[in-house]
Amino acid sequence: MTPPARVPKSTNITWSEGHVTPDRRREILGHGPATIWFTGLSGSGKSTVATQVESILAGRGVNAFVLDGDNVRHGLNSDLGFAPADRAENIRRVGEVCRLFHDAGMIVLTAFISPYRTDRDVVRARHPAGTFFEVFVEAPLDVCEARDVKGLYAKARAGEIPDFSGVSAPYEPPVGAELTLDTDAQTVEESAAAVLTLLEEQGILG
Amino acid sequence: MTPPARVPKSTNITWSEGHVTPDRRREILGHGPATIWFTGLSGSGKSTVATQVESILAGRGVNAFVLDGDNVRHGLNSDLGFAPADRAENIRRVGEVCRLFHDAGMIVLTAFISPYRTDRDVVRARHPAGTFFEVFVEAPLDVCEARDVKGLYAKARAGEIPDFSGVSAPYEPPVGAELTLDTDAQTVEESAAAVLTLLEEQGILG
Repeated sequence: MTPPARVPKSTNITWSEGHVTPDRRREILGHGPATIWFTGLSGSGKSTVATQVESILAGRGVNAFVLDGDNVRHGLNSDLGFAPADRAENIRRVGEVCRLFHDAGMIVLTAFISPYRTDRDVVRARHPAGTFFEVFVEAPLDVCEARDVKGLYAKARAGEIPDFSGVSAPYEPPVGAELTLDTDAQTVEESAAAVLTLLEEQGILG
Repeated sequence: MTPPARVPKSTNITWSEGHVTPDRRREILGHGPATIWFTGLSGSGKSTVATQVESILAGRGVNAFVLDGDNVRHGLNSDLGFAPADRAENIRRVGEVCRLFHDAGMIVLTAFISPYRTDRDVVRARHPAGTFFEVFVEAPLDVCEARDVKGLYAKARAGEIPDFSGVSAPYEPPVGAELTLDTDAQTVEESAAAVLTLLEEQGILG
């Protein structure tokens, strides 16, 4: 267990460890814990690749789970908007959920634009070494915009969505990503395969 | 999937379903999803029983997970204090985490005082029928106070902790709990066994 990230508001609390060891969880599940953090522009293919990996893993008997920006915002983070502070808090909370899934021994795949390097580094710092994998889903802005699956770029260009990453707000590419996917050149299957290879090489699977 | 609990702040989001079905997750894990929500006074034995159940389940090859008030407050909810609004938000977020674990097919056991009926009902409403189990850990206040494992009652009586459930803030017992444990009369083993029987009878295990 890594120590708490920051000093909590109340001091009337104690830090208690669970009684089921990480080794026992690994034994039960047949794999180690991992957070696969996909980051990239809207339309770059984060959710598509994450869902594909989740599906392939399920086929192999591994119960991984996709945390999706869209879904989390309906529940846990339904009180947050898209202003910079809200974005940071959105990513912080998702990171803490990843940490809880990690402690439960799970493989979790996240699909959030997560445009700020600092926010992603906060999440990385909350994970024990070798269990956090940043995957840069790199596709040129014009490709993402041409795809525009959700019609968001059109709205952003029309000024209907403020602070849209890559258009009217920054996107900071990772500097030390464990993996970079080029979804313009690679198929979804190739991208998913690259993630699985990473998990195998890092000893998470098997 | 149940619909989102409330309308999110942003409308630029869509509700996407995962591709791995609940049935497939059940097949992989060998059990169904469940949230076992322990509620009761400080010192009533919530964490002790929850951890015991987690441990017994691990012995049976079931990878359950305890979400503990103490631990969550170091991470996800480290920005929250103990004022009524913060307490409600604390429980809301934990409930949403339970929902995410539920969607991942997991059995999660929570150990939070969660003194307000309304807050607990919000969490219940976020779970599909038959997957949320409220367990009232009932021990008389004087018994909990005599145990005072963490020395909190002494501090609360000395006025050092404001809003302490059962002393200077209300505790509202459940009205429709799926299970009530009397930790004054029952051993930890007996309490844990009662929870396991509930999980078996409700078709979560096996």
